[in-house]
Amino acid sequence: MQLGMIGLGRMGANMVRRLLRAGHTAVVYDANPDAVKQLAAEGAIPAATLEEFVAKLEKPRNAWVMVPAAITDKVVEQLAALLEADDTIIDGGNSYFRDDRRRAASLQPKGLHYLDVGTSGGTHGLDRGYCMMIGGDKVAVERMDPIFKSLAPGRGDIERTPGREKLGGTAEDGYLHCGPSGAGHFVKMVHNGIEYGLMAAYGEGLDILANANVANQKHEADAETAPLMNPDLVFDLNLADITEVWRRGSVISSWLLDLTAAAFATDPKLDGYSGRVSDSGEGRWTIMAAIDEAVDCEVLTAALYARFRSRKEHTIAEKVCSAMRYQFGGHLEKKA
Amino acid sequence: MQLGMIGLGRMGANMVRRLLRAGHTAVVYDANPDAVKQLAAEGAIPAATLEEFVAKLEKPRNAWVMVPAAITDKVVEQLAALLEADDTIIDGGNSYFRDDRRRAASLQPKGLHYLDVGTSGGTHGLDRGYCMMIGGDKVAVERMDPIFKSLAPGRGDIERTPGREKLGGTAEDGYLHCGPSGAGHFVKMVHNGIEYGLMAAYGEGLDILANANVANQKHEADAETAPLMNPDLVFDLNLADITEVWRRGSVISSWLLDLTAAAFATDPKLDGYSGRVSDSGEGRWTIMAAIDEAVDCEVLTAALYARFRSRKEHTIAEKVCSAMRYQFGGHLEKKA
Amino acid sequence: MQLGMIGLGRMGANMVRRLLRAGHTAVVYDANPDAVKQLAAEGAIPAATLEEFVAKLEKPRNAWVMVPAAITDKVVEQLAALLEADDTIIDGGNSYFRDDRRRAASLQPKGLHYLDVGTSGGTHGLDRGYCMMIGGDKVAVERMDPIFKSLAPGRGDIERTPGREKLGGTAEDGYLHCGPSGAGHFVKMVHNGIEYGLMAAYGEGLDILANANVANQKHEADAETAPLMNPDLVFDLNLADITEVWRRGSVISSWLLDLTAAAFATDPKLDGYSGRVSDSGEGRWTIMAAIDEAVDCEVLTAALYARFRSRKEHTIAEKVCSAMRYQFGGHLEKKA
Amino acid sequence: MQLGMIGLGRMGANMVRRLLRAGHTAVVYDANPDAVKQLAAEGAIPAATLEEFVAKLEKPRNAWVMVPAAITDKVVEQLAALLEADDTIIDGGNSYFRDDRRRAASLQPKGLHYLDVGTSGGTHGLDRGYCMMIGGDKVAVERMDPIFKSLAPGRGDIERTPGREKLGGTAEDGYLHCGPSGAGHFVKMVHNGIEYGLMAAYGEGLDILANANVANQKHEADAETAPLMNPDLVFDLNLADITEVWRRGSVISSWLLDLTAAAFATDPKLDGYSGRVSDSGEGRWTIMAAIDEAVDCEVLTAALYARFRSRKEHTIAEKVCSAMRYQFGGHLEKKA
Repeated sequence: MQLGMIGLGRMGANMVRRLLRAGHTAVVYDANPDAVKQLAAEGAIPAATLEEFVAKLEKPRNAWVMVPAAITDKVVEQLAALLEADDTIIDGGNSYFRDDRRRAASLQPKGLHYLDVGTSGGTHGLDRGYCMMIGGDKVAVERMDPIFKSLAPGRGDIERTPGREKLGGTAEDGYLHCGPSGAGHFVKMVHNGIEYGLMAAYGEGLDILANANVANQKHEADAETAPLMNPDLVFDLNLADITEVWRRGSVISSWLLDLTAAAFATDPKLDGYSGRVSDSGEGRWTIMAAIDEAVDCEVLTAALYARFRSRKEHTIAEKVCSAMRYQFGGHLEKKA
Repeated sequence: MQLGMIGLGRMGANMVRRLLRAGHTAVVYDANPDAVKQLAAEGAIPAATLEEFVAKLEKPRNAWVMVPAAITDKVVEQLAALLEADDTIIDGGNSYFRDDRRRAASLQPKGLHYLDVGTSGGTHGLDRGYCMMIGGDKVAVERMDPIFKSLAPGRGDIERTPGREKLGGTAEDGYLHCGPSGAGHFVKMVHNGIEYGLMAAYGEGLDILANANVANQKHEADAETAPLMNPDLVFDLNLADITEVWRRGSVISSWLLDLTAAAFATDPKLDGYSGRVSDSGEGRWTIMAAIDEAVDCEVLTAALYARFRSRKEHTIAEKVCSAMRYQFGGHLEKKA
Repeated sequence: MQLGMIGLGRMGANMVRRLLRAGHTAVVYDANPDAVKQLAAEGAIPAATLEEFVAKLEKPRNAWVMVPAAITDKVVEQLAALLEADDTIIDGGNSYFRDDRRRAASLQPKGLHYLDVGTSGGTHGLDRGYCMMIGGDKVAVERMDPIFKSLAPGRGDIERTPGREKLGGTAEDGYLHCGPSGAGHFVKMVHNGIEYGLMAAYGEGLDILANANVANQKHEADAETAPLMNPDLVFDLNLADITEVWRRGSVISSWLLDLTAAAFATDPKLDGYSGRVSDSGEGRWTIMAAIDEAVDCEVLTAALYARFRSRKEHTIAEKVCSAMRYQFGGHLEKKA
Repeated sequence: MQLGMIGLGRMGANMVRRLLRAGHTAVVYDANPDAVKQLAAEGAIPAATLEEFVAKLEKPRNAWVMVPAAITDKVVEQLAALLEADDTIIDGGNSYFRDDRRRAASLQPKGLHYLDVGTSGGTHGLDRGYCMMIGGDKVAVERMDPIFKSLAPGRGDIERTPGREKLGGTAEDGYLHCGPSGAGHFVKMVHNGIEYGLMAAYGEGLDILANANVANQKHEADAETAPLMNPDLVFDLNLADITEVWRRGSVISSWLLDLTAAAFATDPKLDGYSGRVSDSGEGRWTIMAAIDEAVDCEVLTAALYARFRSRKEHTIAEKVCSAMRYQFGGHLEKKA
């Protein structure tokens, strides 16, 4: 089958490669001509302009947009102006699901299909396959099934879920039509929300292990310092070994743990990282959706807030607490 | 009545002053002779040694210990060796309630009473009076009632709680016999746990107000930065005025708000504070008690953790999250 | 001065009464004619229709809308159609600040002023006065100053904030022009967010006190039950007395504590309440604003989530945890 | 090699079976004679009493205790009275690490070794192998290496961690000597703390997905109900398919996700679970250690608290909030 790909960054380029390997053809376009040239050298059909891109695609066209969320609207608009009824635009980035619903509604009068595809797998997807969560109309989803099947990881040697044999569908192959427009990015959004939570859970646990020798450290005894309750916190633990041992047979084994073990294996104190943790929107949207649903989600929210805090020197909230303590108790802040 | 006071720091000295003003007498001792001299000049009976302190007290003696928690055990032990049956030791510091129960049990064979008195009011207590939460045996508590009454704020001009007229007791006067040994410091411990929560609630709210102009600021548009959803966050707010206006008639008026308004009135950005917030034990013990009781207390815990975090540059947890992001997505940390 | 009031519920009616007492006049309208009749009997000028309401107002008109948030838009629209340039609509309800900005923008072409006034004080405002946070253009705010001054609590006998004498303004009188359109409801929104946090802090602390006798209770010893660590949790505490004693001299004294003491004074176990806690929007909007500002606000969020959870039997999240425990450990759920 | 096993429940019996399969011999004892008989039929050497158990073991003896935490102390004491210098007691249960340190210290004068072994893997360990975290003296750990190696999962076909080839050690085989006495159970304790966090993260995310159709539901419009902000929450999602699709190629794939997918595959609404989630101590101890270390761990704490809350009808904290709302605003609770 044929796919058109707009945006040849880390994700888009590797998706094209995975499709080429599987015997599909691809028309590729990127604002950066070098990125196009590179993929052409690997067997893709190059396009120098969006017009050429559209012209080279077989009808009905499947144009996958893989660009930063901030410019998705512009690209979709330009593309829509060039496409014809029954063509399909696929947004494979990290759009907000409400934008998907708005876009799908605006493209419908022209007869265009719009699919929102949340894609997980990161830079490992080329080899590992991409887990895809898809929203949009059934016709377009089914038509593109060969593409999704090739991009997805497939069943591999992962043990089958008991009871799954009765359920059917594509979920076992690593891609899923989740529902109408927006459903794909909604599920991916929550996936990322969970991801934040899992990451923070490992992070906090490892932090507790890293500080398990607190009783060996000098402890000040003044009215501004809480006394140590537990004299048994005397452990100097090896986080590289601990994350490694958990990879086999433990209840908390996971792919994120594999990555953590890899990080500690070569950087045992993680000195290569400052600890400023970015967030790219999905975590925030997850919490906003949860609040609208009146679903309490303390863990996911705490994980998001820890990222916010990680990027600051100090907050106003902290200064307010210090100021109150000075006002009611004459407490002076301790120096760092 | 007469009270002996050991420890003439900020709290102890002012409590003596408040008693003297009320017509009581006080024998005072402190490791620092200047502190003793100062109080003697104000009418207290000075003691140069612990022995002299005990000798000058009328029987049955009432010896109030107001020293840092870290040395309370030592002082109580030395004092107990000098006292006689039916004398009373009062621990007015911030002891852990389990230490109170241990001490009370160890003093009982000798016939000594032991009272644990949690004292709130901070440096304002001299004028405002001290709110006291008392644990220990009834005999000693009732015997010392005149002292407690004078230290306490009294009813003042605070409006009476509807329904209170049927209940009686001393709570309206600002002091309360809460229960057996440890009960006083337990109630004070939870009081401080609540205090942390209240402080953090004001702090967070003011932080949200302080950042309400985020839409006016330059916002980066890259895959590492969440897009701003809300273009209406354009407010430059005056926190000094806002904390002041809430003092009158609002649902969130409180003494802590009064102090906050005072801080902002002279330091509108709180530039005088770095934001490193100490914790002195009670907040931690509150959470530990809650966990043992299986009581979920997210708010109080979050307030404690925010203090922990405020004293750090970065946590291992944050570095772990950064390391994972690099491993799965090639994400590089953004510079400060 | 004269004010028109639309909506004579608990809040609107009492605001009119407070204005009448202060010597102002008021034109009143409500969908319920009995409410209008009642206020007319107390000295207000009644209006049977919106048209009559507008006709009876002196120019430039000041029309205060005090209706449920869900119908504010409709009322504002109907009113705007009847008003003339330089008239002012005041929304005194709990509107979302973004709706204020939208409304203000839509009314501007017609020359109408729009003020958003967040009002705190609840059912006690008639006597205590209303704390008001005002957004909108300066002309309209200043013109209505006599109304705001009379509705507000005034300085009363509350001690002056040190440093306040140099700052001036109306904050000390209990009302404040916070900024442009939306700023009033934004500040009120965060006020309510803080309110949730304060309430939860007291609630959690009192919960820990209420369960302080856990060591006296029978404790199961099986693999599904965590062992009790702390045998000293033996306290039967009197929450009515404790909330009362904290009212005087303690660091955590506040108006909300006064109300809590009143609740416990007549209902010592709060048996009159089931514990299903509503939320009316402001807490949610506060968190959404915080997330957009990247301000971590764990305490306020936890307070909101506790309300969500309080209204449910069980969550999917809980069932997922039970299901996992069964899958990996064969753990069966314990019966209630 | 030979191992003695005391306690033939779910965990102990399967560990014996795994050792027998690997060619080791085992002496087995349990208070329940049927459990002993069963294992004897599978090739273990039965013991009818603790004395017989000790007598049948080769010297130096290795006695593994796998009993509920509540009776571990008693069994260890009885066993220690029968053993000789250089024998080893292994506690494979879920002891508190401070108890391990106390036990090790008390057994040392007699020349006995004491190992604390945290064991993860649950009921799947027989086939999957047991991940073991070991604390205690090196001599005993090294002597028992063949036993640990056979119980552990081994490297299997799990991809090697990059950089691991330079590090050596046993972590890759699924067992690890973590440090001195207590270190094994400390690491296992934090493992369980992380486990709670991971479970809650999946649980909350799935809850948000399960409620993603909130805009399709009837929504009340009164002052006690927050308005729905987001009309796009119209998704009816299939959680069985979604948990399945995430198993392949997604960032959040894990063993816990595998189990979750299995639960949903046969019970798509989890109707088989009520949602009362037990906790067995390790999560609590993790938080207590974190607090003593001043490590903020919001996520792990929130996960624990959610379990506490899941086992209650309503909390005092909730009733306090309802009572305050009634007091300041006359708000009546909505019915369930």
